[in-house]
Amino acid sequence: MIIDSSQLNQFENRYRAILINSLAGIKQAFLIGTKSLDGNSNVAIFNSLVHIGANPPLWGFICRPDTVQRDTLRNILETGQYTLNMIHKDHSENAHQTSAKYPSNVSEFEACGFTERIIEPFTAPFVEEAPIKIGMKFEEKINIAINGTLLIIGSIQYIELDEQWLSDDGFIDVAKANTLTCAGLDAYYENKFLHRLSYAKPEKWPSNI
Amino acid sequence: MIIDSSQLNQFENRYRAILINSLAGIKQAFLIGTKSLDGNSNVAIFNSLVHIGANPPLWGFICRPDTVQRDTLRNILETGQYTLNMIHKDHSENAHQTSAKYPSNVSEFEACGFTERIIEPFTAPFVEEAPIKIGMKFEEKINIAINGTLLIIGSIQYIELDEQWLSDDGFIDVAKANTLTCAGLDAYYENKFLHRLSYAKPEKWPSNI
Repeated sequence: MIIDSSQLNQFENRYRAILINSLAGIKQAFLIGTKSLDGNSNVAIFNSLVHIGANPPLWGFICRPDTVQRDTLRNILETGQYTLNMIHKDHSENAHQTSAKYPSNVSEFEACGFTERIIEPFTAPFVEEAPIKIGMKFEEKINIAINGTLLIIGSIQYIELDEQWLSDDGFIDVAKANTLTCAGLDAYYENKFLHRLSYAKPEKWPSNI
Repeated sequence: MIIDSSQLNQFENRYRAILINSLAGIKQAFLIGTKSLDGNSNVAIFNSLVHIGANPPLWGFICRPDTVQRDTLRNILETGQYTLNMIHKDHSENAHQTSAKYPSNVSEFEACGFTERIIEPFTAPFVEEAPIKIGMKFEEKINIAINGTLLIIGSIQYIELDEQWLSDDGFIDVAKANTLTCAGLDAYYENKFLHRLSYAKPEKWPSNI
């Protein structure tokens, strides 16, 4: 079937949001942990992480300032730090529940069945249950004028994982950690490793490495 | 195991690139199809698609101007259009091979075993073998000053897919289309649907929908 731009424009807003979000495909799900200046912990699910560069190690994520994500955003801008926590596939319900609109003074850790872990010198809380934990320093906020969203860029400061998931060449297989991926606003997936392929060169077909 | 920022800084460049790229997790793989002003077709694999908004329907992707991606970038900026093509999991080798540094006048379609399809009024070529085809109009180029990468934003103009993958509420299950996901620079995955969960509310635990 074909959906053209005039049909897209005519869809009811909720239908279009579900369609366009899910069509963007499957992404790694992350819990972002933050703490407000007055000490309230916050954790929220995000799926818009993008790799920006490896040297320095920079990642970004898209944030909509007018949603439940605003607590996360305010805490990052005020404290300059946040944690990224991958999610075990058995915790999809807990992770999804962090997207409920809890009051700012309620910790989603407690409400959603996760455990806070503080790893000094970070004040932003990590998720104890996360198989892979990453500590981030806020670097840059980029305004996306076309629709008022933000690209939040941070640098990787700390990584904690099981060394069994790390190959000799630096590759980390997040499927070995049974991590959760997601699509759209509410769909969750697990992942099966197919293969790694050799560096692509014009004169040679890729092979498994 | 723990990797801190001083260890990260000391890693050899290639090791750090593999590590930081793969740690960003699993993403949907897309082939971006473009055509140059002088008529050369180009297709290249990308995995950095992010959802920017649904109304208007906007997606972005990260582009490094100093790599094999430069042909794609130049064609998008010159012609104002590009296609996004999801990849069947059986085509991972073909898709990976598009990342080889072919000369600008070589079509990766032919070299990598894909078939061009023109869908008017688009001049940018679609990938015939792609289970889901999306036509994009270039909207905005955002410079990420911190490391010289670009965020390329486009609006969705055209969608072609099998209606069996589309639910009544607008949800598209890309796993039903057997689409390929990837991690890092060379790892490929397939995906298994777990569940969709009900809209999260503070007073109610999510359930399958």
